[in-house]
Amino acid sequence: MMRTTIHVCTTCRLGDEPLEPKEARSGARLYRELSARAREDAFEIIPVECLSVCKRPVTIGFSAPGKWSYIYGDFPPDGSADTILEAAQLYADAPDGLIPWKDRPAEIKRGVVARIPPAFTQFAEAAE
Amino acid sequence: MMRTTIHVCTTCRLGDEPLEPKEARSGARLYRELSARAREDAFEIIPVECLSVCKRPVTIGFSAPGKWSYIYGDFPPDGSADTILEAAQLYADAPDGLIPWKDRPAEIKRGVVARIPPAFTQFAEAAE
Repeated sequence: MMRTTIHVCTTCRLGDEPLEPKEARSGARLYRELSARAREDAFEIIPVECLSVCKRPVTIGFSAPGKWSYIYGDFPPDGSADTILEAAQLYADAPDGLIPWKDRPAEIKRGVVARIPPAFTQFAEAAE
Repeated sequence: MMRTTIHVCTTCRLGDEPLEPKEARSGARLYRELSARAREDAFEIIPVECLSVCKRPVTIGFSAPGKWSYIYGDFPPDGSADTILEAAQLYADAPDGLIPWKDRPAEIKRGVVARIPPAFTQFAEAAE
């Protein structure tokens, strides 16, 4: 089965959160929350040090082979895991990664930061 | 040789630009400009209908197999091609896609929208 990757920026801090300890940052907390709740056969939760969207913490991303990658922001660490995993399931169900607009949770609609087309070219070149 | 992909959002419009004709939009113009100037052996310029960064036109992206993907915004269609191609060459020269901070053109420093880690997992899974 092809798993969906969920990247989580573990360095994201909300408001005036202290730099240390790093594991108390909002991003690190959301990462742990998602890791604890996600179905391991369906999702791979990968911690990332900075997704370069520092003004919209916590930032996450969805990607999977042959699908558009999406970056979303504005997720508070508490109470966002269910919304993210619900959206990640819709992404997993979509052959190209495009979640139908009407099905998108409100947080996903307004949280979108950017998207990148599927890496068909990269796959072809990588196979050479 | 492994080429660098430069995605260009052809639907991006600056200010109150009209919707039609589509080929006159800032994004479409920047796409043509880059296509005309880029070295074909080094760069693949790919038009994309919307990178979901509509508030920061024109939006572009760099990606290559095994490297971080980067999304940048705020490029006016006139006079940006040289800056973008200079940065794309630095990206091509960086094994992981991380351009050293001191070498980044100012437009690239302040234009960053987001980045996504290299898709090692996806490659591994795609090969299965």
